[in-house]
Amino acid sequence: MSQTNIEIAQAARMLPIQQIAEGLGIPDEALEPYGRHKAKVALRWLAGLEDRPDGKLILVTAVSPTPAGEGKTTTTVGLGDALTRIGQRAMICLREPALGPVFGMKGGAAGGGYAQVVPMEDINLHFTGDFAAIAVATNLLAALIDNHIHRGNALGIDVRRITWRRVLDVNDRALRDVVVGLGGPDNGYPRESGFDIVVASEVMAVFCLATDLADLRERLGEIIVGYTRDRKPVRARELDAHGAMTAILRDALAPNLVQTLEHTPAFVHGGPFANIAHGCNSLVATRAALKLADYVVTEAGFGSDLGAEKFVDILCRSSGLRPSGAVIVATVRAMKYHGGVDVANLTSENVEALEKGSVNLLRHLGIVRETLGLPAVVAINHRAEDTDAEVAALVRVAEQAGVRAVVARHYADGGAGATELAREVMRTTEEPSTMRFTYPDEAPLWQKMRTIATRVYGASDITASTAVRRQIHRLQDEGFGNYPVCVAKTQYSFSTDAKLRGAPTRHVVDIREVRLAAGAGFVVMVCGDVMTMPGLPAVPAATSIDVDADGRIVGLF
Amino acid sequence: MSQTNIEIAQAARMLPIQQIAEGLGIPDEALEPYGRHKAKVALRWLAGLEDRPDGKLILVTAVSPTPAGEGKTTTTVGLGDALTRIGQRAMICLREPALGPVFGMKGGAAGGGYAQVVPMEDINLHFTGDFAAIAVATNLLAALIDNHIHRGNALGIDVRRITWRRVLDVNDRALRDVVVGLGGPDNGYPRESGFDIVVASEVMAVFCLATDLADLRERLGEIIVGYTRDRKPVRARELDAHGAMTAILRDALAPNLVQTLEHTPAFVHGGPFANIAHGCNSLVATRAALKLADYVVTEAGFGSDLGAEKFVDILCRSSGLRPSGAVIVATVRAMKYHGGVDVANLTSENVEALEKGSVNLLRHLGIVRETLGLPAVVAINHRAEDTDAEVAALVRVAEQAGVRAVVARHYADGGAGATELAREVMRTTEEPSTMRFTYPDEAPLWQKMRTIATRVYGASDITASTAVRRQIHRLQDEGFGNYPVCVAKTQYSFSTDAKLRGAPTRHVVDIREVRLAAGAGFVVMVCGDVMTMPGLPAVPAATSIDVDADGRIVGLF
Repeated sequence: MSQTNIEIAQAARMLPIQQIAEGLGIPDEALEPYGRHKAKVALRWLAGLEDRPDGKLILVTAVSPTPAGEGKTTTTVGLGDALTRIGQRAMICLREPALGPVFGMKGGAAGGGYAQVVPMEDINLHFTGDFAAIAVATNLLAALIDNHIHRGNALGIDVRRITWRRVLDVNDRALRDVVVGLGGPDNGYPRESGFDIVVASEVMAVFCLATDLADLRERLGEIIVGYTRDRKPVRARELDAHGAMTAILRDALAPNLVQTLEHTPAFVHGGPFANIAHGCNSLVATRAALKLADYVVTEAGFGSDLGAEKFVDILCRSSGLRPSGAVIVATVRAMKYHGGVDVANLTSENVEALEKGSVNLLRHLGIVRETLGLPAVVAINHRAEDTDAEVAALVRVAEQAGVRAVVARHYADGGAGATELAREVMRTTEEPSTMRFTYPDEAPLWQKMRTIATRVYGASDITASTAVRRQIHRLQDEGFGNYPVCVAKTQYSFSTDAKLRGAPTRHVVDIREVRLAAGAGFVVMVCGDVMTMPGLPAVPAATSIDVDADGRIVGLF
Repeated sequence: MSQTNIEIAQAARMLPIQQIAEGLGIPDEALEPYGRHKAKVALRWLAGLEDRPDGKLILVTAVSPTPAGEGKTTTTVGLGDALTRIGQRAMICLREPALGPVFGMKGGAAGGGYAQVVPMEDINLHFTGDFAAIAVATNLLAALIDNHIHRGNALGIDVRRITWRRVLDVNDRALRDVVVGLGGPDNGYPRESGFDIVVASEVMAVFCLATDLADLRERLGEIIVGYTRDRKPVRARELDAHGAMTAILRDALAPNLVQTLEHTPAFVHGGPFANIAHGCNSLVATRAALKLADYVVTEAGFGSDLGAEKFVDILCRSSGLRPSGAVIVATVRAMKYHGGVDVANLTSENVEALEKGSVNLLRHLGIVRETLGLPAVVAINHRAEDTDAEVAALVRVAEQAGVRAVVARHYADGGAGATELAREVMRTTEEPSTMRFTYPDEAPLWQKMRTIATRVYGASDITASTAVRRQIHRLQDEGFGNYPVCVAKTQYSFSTDAKLRGAPTRHVVDIREVRLAAGAGFVVMVCGDVMTMPGLPAVPAATSIDVDADGRIVGLF
């Protein structure tokens, strides 16, 4: 393909967003336009749709990705366009891209090739300001905590036990560990702290799990920001912070409507990372889409070990959402990578490596079909360099496991390239949902983590330092044992070692750190080296992004 | 008045923003709506108006404020509405409120009573996302600096001499002085740094001084972020940061169109504080308004010693803007305050204290008329508790100084309460502008600061530590001597001591710190205790702001 993503996106002829809304039956008064091609849909109007039946929910997940990603967003878009093309009322639900990675390594995250949501630059930059609002809400709470202590600390917060961290939407490793409050009494009490990226924040998780504004406010109030000297939790509510935080987030909570290059309507709303957070777009958006369309295609970040597991065990558990089936995105390239081929050699044919690496796909098929109970289709996201022999081998692998594998060419051909996939997905989702959870609510936290590690990651066991074990036991004793577990770990491997490709077994998952997210309603277990604040690479994408003489953004991929 | 600002604002019947734009002759295709009542006006379309004659520019300034503020924004809105009411084509240009103070002490900053710009909650919260974009641009540059050092430091940046600070739009004293880069080699090199509030940032200043996107990009490239070991400045351009920063700010640079309660069009765009930055809304907005209206009313922050001086010496100097006249907002309340009355007793009649305190007004009249050469009108911003005797005394004071003083009741009565003021302003601005600068370009930096301190602040001299003097001399030697000086000091007094009311003389201004803003094109001299990152008060406004069951924002004043 000679055109870059941004060139394709900028050449797109978008319809006015009012027209997209009209196609969904959204009246003009329920629409808050942001420019000509983005709009928020009023929560009040959406609340009136409660009695409508839900459409079918299709979850797009993937194999363990190579560093370049396997095209999950692209496939979600392509499948939505293909469903539209074969006459279905379809909608897409995606996460909003984080700004940090756009200027770091990743570039844009609005699909690619001829399967993109547009306006691409807007979606990748500030979009409608949701992430900025989430950052301000988080940082306001932090300021209220330090101010409370500075003003006499009536709640008796232990400055050594403040767990609330500030956030920015910038990849900035220098902010991972900081000391704040230096400079003398006017600046408060010095203490250790740190910044996370917005997409790793609890407010982002709360935002994406809340059913409505009242639930958002309630959850924000429940957030535990730290502990007193005698280990009593201190909540945002006690600081009177949750009202203002809700006010900051009020407009943001309405879902953002955009369109694909082929005018399929899409909600792009909320965006927790799946390696360090729960990894799905907002519940508000998905619920709304299910009322507006017969097929709703959504994605959960990274491989099924991360996004799909959390989609089911966190989002579906708390919300009652039930996907009718799943699409597992696989690439010839990723299978060769998992078969041991170096990144530099992935464009050469290598059926043997592909077959060897397809253990990764098989493990993901097992997670999706057996552990999570979802009927599945494999979408082979086709790349120009894939050979017929490789594609045939990959189809064979899937079919030997009893799953249809369909070649999808939406990257090059848009929705027309994915109509076979769309038909297969429709067939697969004809039966009622059979989704099940990986573990029951009542399993203890340690047991939940162990079940995820052994059943999903293929680990032999989990470990943790005495301090971490003690913390897990304390959470269990304090009544948080019924929470689901949100694992933070590398997306590149089933294990916690990014270099362990394929389908590693007998590895051990070490829990490095535990964070309670009482507002979101889960316990985060950080496993291995994963960072909740990424850094910039040696040559950040920012250094090539620019604005040309005509005011056009260039260098954004 | 029984209704609060937000109640009045929420009861307003706003016109669709398209209708406001139409009244200004802005075609639909030049408008980017943000919701129904806010829109950005395309820079490309505005650039096409260059050949039109400019309207008259009226600068609203004020006496030294009491902690509650004297209603400068309110008067700007009221005057705009009054001009419209008497048949003039008028526009208003205001700064965007900063979020930090909204949740701190100050509450909203979109006018008050029946003289407000609306939608009030939107304008006070995220509005169109401009400040969020400015924060990201600033913080991306910071991350690129630390990343450059972490990756080998090819430019040889001295980690002890990085001057670039991060920003947040939150009042957070704990971030004034921090140590970043802790936690080991993966997190970079530990170093001291700090955060400022967005409105104090150089990117904010650059944003408000830039003539267009190309000038913005050029200025961003010129920003000096720190120095090498041998004191060579390192610029944003050398880090390839300015292109991405421009991309981040591209949409933000188009001015935001809103309306007053009486449907007078208003640009609300950019917002540097006047005590810690240059204090005027964006040049882009003011220039656009001058092409669209015959009278453009704009404000510069705080008293004339801060906002008006910087408006003339910084903004007008670099842009060629020439105000035709000035309105000096005075209140009975502030005059009594400057006459020595405690804040608690300001509602009781006290003509004697008022006459004593009016030295403050007289000093401001001198600055505006003699130093800056602007014909002036005094607007007595009327409050319910003002007695006739007090008002008469204040009118007398002004008229003895040869200036008309007009009582304006826009807070209670909207534009109808300020028509006499509007007529007086029209008379006053009939003659061509006679504006002059406080100091010539070629005066050395020390001399410039001394001229401002003695002529504007009534000081007898300026002082500085040896280190600061050395720094000023170095800037002079390095070729920055032709820059104007942007003073950061308290707004409550002509001196650097907030408690010195009235019109203090023989005080000495100590320069505590010097910051070079090479992108903005000025040298900041921080005098006295003024903070570039405010803190929260004992009872932050945030603790009473909330969202009610109907999704309405409450408690925002």
